[in-house]
Amino acid sequence: MTDPADLADRLQDGELRLYELDDHADADTAAEARRLLAERETDTDLSAIGSYSFAAADAEANIENMIGGAQIPMGIAGPVAVDGGAADGEFYLPLATTEGALLASVNRGLSAIHNSGGATARVTASGMTRAPVFQVAGVAEAEEVVQWVDDNTDNLREAAESTTSHGELLAVDPYVVGDNVFLRFVYDTKDAMGMNMATIATREASELVESETPARLVALSGNLCSDKKPAAINAIEGRGRSVTADVTLSRELVEERLNTTPEAMAEGNTRKNLIGSAKAASLGFNAHAANTVAAVFLATGQDAAQVVEGANAITTMEAREDELYASISFASLEVGTVGGGTRLDTQSEALELLGIAGGGDPPGANANALAELIAVGALAGELSLVAAFCSRHLSSAHEQLGR
Amino acid sequence: MTDPADLADRLQDGELRLYELDDHADADTAAEARRLLAERETDTDLSAIGSYSFAAADAEANIENMIGGAQIPMGIAGPVAVDGGAADGEFYLPLATTEGALLASVNRGLSAIHNSGGATARVTASGMTRAPVFQVAGVAEAEEVVQWVDDNTDNLREAAESTTSHGELLAVDPYVVGDNVFLRFVYDTKDAMGMNMATIATREASELVESETPARLVALSGNLCSDKKPAAINAIEGRGRSVTADVTLSRELVEERLNTTPEAMAEGNTRKNLIGSAKAASLGFNAHAANTVAAVFLATGQDAAQVVEGANAITTMEAREDELYASISFASLEVGTVGGGTRLDTQSEALELLGIAGGGDPPGANANALAELIAVGALAGELSLVAAFCSRHLSSAHEQLGR
Amino acid sequence: MTDPADLADRLQDGELRLYELDDHADADTAAEARRLLAERETDTDLSAIGSYSFAAADAEANIENMIGGAQIPMGIAGPVAVDGGAADGEFYLPLATTEGALLASVNRGLSAIHNSGGATARVTASGMTRAPVFQVAGVAEAEEVVQWVDDNTDNLREAAESTTSHGELLAVDPYVVGDNVFLRFVYDTKDAMGMNMATIATREASELVESETPARLVALSGNLCSDKKPAAINAIEGRGRSVTADVTLSRELVEERLNTTPEAMAEGNTRKNLIGSAKAASLGFNAHAANTVAAVFLATGQDAAQVVEGANAITTMEAREDELYASISFASLEVGTVGGGTRLDTQSEALELLGIAGGGDPPGANANALAELIAVGALAGELSLVAAFCSRHLSSAHEQLGR
Amino acid sequence: MTDPADLADRLQDGELRLYELDDHADADTAAEARRLLAERETDTDLSAIGSYSFAAADAEANIENMIGGAQIPMGIAGPVAVDGGAADGEFYLPLATTEGALLASVNRGLSAIHNSGGATARVTASGMTRAPVFQVAGVAEAEEVVQWVDDNTDNLREAAESTTSHGELLAVDPYVVGDNVFLRFVYDTKDAMGMNMATIATREASELVESETPARLVALSGNLCSDKKPAAINAIEGRGRSVTADVTLSRELVEERLNTTPEAMAEGNTRKNLIGSAKAASLGFNAHAANTVAAVFLATGQDAAQVVEGANAITTMEAREDELYASISFASLEVGTVGGGTRLDTQSEALELLGIAGGGDPPGANANALAELIAVGALAGELSLVAAFCSRHLSSAHEQLGR
Repeated sequence: MTDPADLADRLQDGELRLYELDDHADADTAAEARRLLAERETDTDLSAIGSYSFAAADAEANIENMIGGAQIPMGIAGPVAVDGGAADGEFYLPLATTEGALLASVNRGLSAIHNSGGATARVTASGMTRAPVFQVAGVAEAEEVVQWVDDNTDNLREAAESTTSHGELLAVDPYVVGDNVFLRFVYDTKDAMGMNMATIATREASELVESETPARLVALSGNLCSDKKPAAINAIEGRGRSVTADVTLSRELVEERLNTTPEAMAEGNTRKNLIGSAKAASLGFNAHAANTVAAVFLATGQDAAQVVEGANAITTMEAREDELYASISFASLEVGTVGGGTRLDTQSEALELLGIAGGGDPPGANANALAELIAVGALAGELSLVAAFCSRHLSSAHEQLGR
Repeated sequence: MTDPADLADRLQDGELRLYELDDHADADTAAEARRLLAERETDTDLSAIGSYSFAAADAEANIENMIGGAQIPMGIAGPVAVDGGAADGEFYLPLATTEGALLASVNRGLSAIHNSGGATARVTASGMTRAPVFQVAGVAEAEEVVQWVDDNTDNLREAAESTTSHGELLAVDPYVVGDNVFLRFVYDTKDAMGMNMATIATREASELVESETPARLVALSGNLCSDKKPAAINAIEGRGRSVTADVTLSRELVEERLNTTPEAMAEGNTRKNLIGSAKAASLGFNAHAANTVAAVFLATGQDAAQVVEGANAITTMEAREDELYASISFASLEVGTVGGGTRLDTQSEALELLGIAGGGDPPGANANALAELIAVGALAGELSLVAAFCSRHLSSAHEQLGR
Repeated sequence: MTDPADLADRLQDGELRLYELDDHADADTAAEARRLLAERETDTDLSAIGSYSFAAADAEANIENMIGGAQIPMGIAGPVAVDGGAADGEFYLPLATTEGALLASVNRGLSAIHNSGGATARVTASGMTRAPVFQVAGVAEAEEVVQWVDDNTDNLREAAESTTSHGELLAVDPYVVGDNVFLRFVYDTKDAMGMNMATIATREASELVESETPARLVALSGNLCSDKKPAAINAIEGRGRSVTADVTLSRELVEERLNTTPEAMAEGNTRKNLIGSAKAASLGFNAHAANTVAAVFLATGQDAAQVVEGANAITTMEAREDELYASISFASLEVGTVGGGTRLDTQSEALELLGIAGGGDPPGANANALAELIAVGALAGELSLVAAFCSRHLSSAHEQLGR
Repeated sequence: MTDPADLADRLQDGELRLYELDDHADADTAAEARRLLAERETDTDLSAIGSYSFAAADAEANIENMIGGAQIPMGIAGPVAVDGGAADGEFYLPLATTEGALLASVNRGLSAIHNSGGATARVTASGMTRAPVFQVAGVAEAEEVVQWVDDNTDNLREAAESTTSHGELLAVDPYVVGDNVFLRFVYDTKDAMGMNMATIATREASELVESETPARLVALSGNLCSDKKPAAINAIEGRGRSVTADVTLSRELVEERLNTTPEAMAEGNTRKNLIGSAKAASLGFNAHAANTVAAVFLATGQDAAQVVEGANAITTMEAREDELYASISFASLEVGTVGGGTRLDTQSEALELLGIAGGGDPPGANANALAELIAVGALAGELSLVAAFCSRHLSSAHEQLGR
């Protein structure tokens, strides 16, 4: 009965459904049976997908209807010295990507940063959000509900925090649109990315709102959270970690290692990353920050769909006296070192490589460190890409002068 | 000399640099040497990262400084019937994710769609973009350059297309901001996602602009493209594929399978996905489209950082006579079935599973099909999530009535 | 010497400059002299501009280099019953406009509202903002400055409020971007629109920041305020008054007076105001709210450039059992009944017409009432316009059925 | 019967309605009757509102239910030399405003520009838009409709242009969202702002779409136009005129007249107008462009509600060798010199003052010139404001050095 081929037969016969398999076989056998079914139905060979090295049972909290694994190349960039609020020391960054030249670009930038004594990084704000939408009769009732919320912050906190041993409710911000009341709950979720924690706590608090006011809960997420959507509310107010990394590079280093000048980089950054993004009506004023975010997210088990909010970043470059100042500021980097995909085999190893697997001391420190390290990696990518297009002109200029 | 431990020694001694390893050993040995170095430097065990099953040499175009692979669980959802402009038939969708419940959610939605006879899908617009920024002396010169571009579209096309056997230049749209001229080149890149093709072709065209006008190229990407940033220009004008999937579900099916009503779903969608996103100043008017985009992207070798643009989607639901009409419209889904990560082992198998690996017939058909299938999967996720929060209320209502 | 023609001679001879005239003549004579100069230089007749009826001296706080007045037709719409948090009773709205049909449209909508028993309105949030930008050395110093601000809210409030007899500092919200620290000060400015009050108070507070921290003030407005720019921060967090007006219209009234149905209006509103604006990447999810805002602003002496933020409004319509629920929610309506242009002759009369000229009781009540009345007027405009395009189809449908 | 007091009696008795008055009396008498009614009902004196100097009959196309006029102070700034595509020569700008210091600020900036030899200005794109929304059965039908539109551009042009003697249809751009098809019609409306012309022409074209395809017109404006809403589509693609003005100021002039340096102004502009607006998620990257737009709009009879789109402007400043380069680029300045409010007394005089009243030669030249002159005025305002906050620091620095 636990022979994968037999199970696949029963799937094809309609005796079993895909999601029922887990009741009839262990996780790896079930995955094989589904894979067999898929191979038969589509006349394909899925043996590479079947060549995963983790135990399927370990992934049960991460996926349903599993058939195997996707394998994505992983590399390292560094080392780089980081003076962070939480990350402190020298680090190799793990990046999983299929985009050629990305790792080389980050590596080149990190090398320039390292040669300048390293980057500084700080988490400047932190909070995971969940924003249910409630229906009321109209604006008069909305006013009452908002008033009740303002008067009952302590009760809402008690309800919310009753569901979690770690999480803390930081704020509840109300927004009224006609007969809709949105309440944006903000939580400190420590080392967890925190979406589940925030959702469960908010459900409990929402029940209190429903029982004590005329408001009717429509949806636990009313899209003012805002999760996995490009939204100005996150770019402005932040979600997860707001984190900045910066560095000053001497003129010599810019000239010798990056083959350009602080002035050229500042100007190039303004034309492309500021003015270009302004004209595009963008929330991302950077060159390719999402590349580093995505690559470290994949390596360390973060939620790949949250790369969306991870792209809300502003890169600045300015020529100072004899140096270049460069920074990148992420508004909404949603990361964790516990829960989600962080427990899987390769992902937890990548976090170990950074020395920040599991819960931090104090709680939240590991997730803060991860945010800071991603910011430093992205800063490196920005320096490298901007220098690349600026140096082109320098060399062109040299050629022209040489004639 | 090709013993990994020896190479790692030489890396630690500073004799070799990380990126020089490829000159001293085959790809797998080089990866092992780097992994050894990382293990020693960080006192960790990276054996799971080292347990990749593909040939390192096959990933050379995708990564530098490779140390191994990230493994991400993959599952399937379906089957679902699709009536697409390119995709036609029944499909199982491969999704790679670490977010528990996602696959079950998509599967539930696909089941409802399948029971309704399947979804319709169409690519309504297509074009990969690259938008260099040029500097001019001022707006008087900008006007001349724009005029030259308008007068020389054929010459620009000839230059651009001289670099590619497949790509076609569709349009060049100029934008002026002070002394900056941005030219947004739009290409048909067939089955390739097309960023590289577009970049190379645009470089050639830009050189023509530089040689024939006073404009000076600042950067090949001026951020009006806009790549891997949340930007209204993509949400409005599209990038990659603009694709819509829709379905009508009978009232019976909505009531029996989704435990709610067309009216409730339409209202819930309006409050959350339209009004909530409006108040959040979002470019994404959907519930969690990025989840499906990210999961199929990872499974099929797409660029994970382009999940950013993949979140620019609008979900609509309306209660019609005796049915629910539901749709999702992606503005900027950047996908390909050739190039990039699509050639890797597990990724190409996932494309085979969909029957769309490699170049399509006619060219572009496979990438179009992939876009349509992602849209159908995302539509399923929207139906499932919206039904879930609406049915909560129905059941609550039932409980209350039952008392 | 105070003969206008003589003064105009001296202006033409270059003996006097335009702005120096006020030292040589009373305000009306100076205006005439400038007008004469302009007429001579441009060979025109500006007698209508010279036919203003107010005393030029009364406008000295409102304009420099005055030559006369612009005259804009003003009309009234109403009466309409309003149940507001501050406005209570029946009102005629004064609107100054040159756009034909606007007044008729608002009047038609107000009539429908009035026949339904009037509209409800509430100010749901209030606060005028000013956000200076400071430069720091880098993110490490930014963290210190933000910490200092958090620790010194009371001192900042004391400094800010030392400059004003009425204003109250409600909050100071910090935002960090690289080596820039933005502090968004939020004030209760009572019946004044409050920009000047907020600017003066923020200057004082900023000096405290400069003297106590390493931050250097760059500009008193760092564009996070954000004044007279379309900005998501205002659409989300509000500026001036956040105000909602709503109404329920019976099915009969919708059918008989507006010639359409609640269902048609709800659907039309969704397709145009929600989905259309979503696709346009807009901050305004309404039909033409800015028309009413502009017309009442001009009539009552508000700042015409702040029509920009006044357009950040969301209109909702839903078909309920036997009625239509309609609402409009302005995020950032910046109004006052004291200061600015409110003291001028025609403007103060228009405020008298509304019964809200000058300071309110309690302070702020008059400005709140003005916000509520504008919202009701705009709601009327939305109802009228949406009904207009919906009824077209009803009549077309009738014609078709008649065949 | 035409005694105003008698008419007011009949209004109060309910014998007559406000809008019926025009059938019983001439325009001025009707206005007086309504004013009397309003005075009685609200116990106010509206004599200033009644002191308008234009003939009420001349405003019949501009307003309904007229009671009088709003009077707004008007001044002039200049002269300034302009080298425009349409505007050429020296100009005094008329500005109507109630915001003290605005005119002085613009005047100061114009003076600096004039001393530098004047500003350059160009309209870089032009087109008034109207975007109806149609309903279709689903995306399959949407594809057909879009295909029909692409195949029938000539027929659509013929239909649209049959309604106008001047207007030309430039483009029809389709956008699909689920079962909604938006068609954005773009017109050259010559010297008219063109909303009415565009609406009438689009109605005709839409009827052709309805008769030849299964699409059903929902609304003539589907909010993708986008009129009087802050929308990225206008900021990116333009509406009305896209216009840039720029100037180079010598270092000496910046130092002596503006009391600061090119470097300080460039840096201040970057921190405030670029980075600050980026963080605010704004579509306006300028200091106070809307102020000048609003003031010239009021003076010259433009639509005050379109100040909204007029705020979509980007200001750039850069320190070049020995000078400051400054520019402002408006994306969507909607102006006309015929129609709308331009025919009213004071408004037409203000246009005469600029030498651009009525239709231009060639058609469109006058509206282009108006756009260019507003841009130059706004550029002056930007220079003045940025210099003001920069010079503060210079003087502070001097004071500190002086100690």
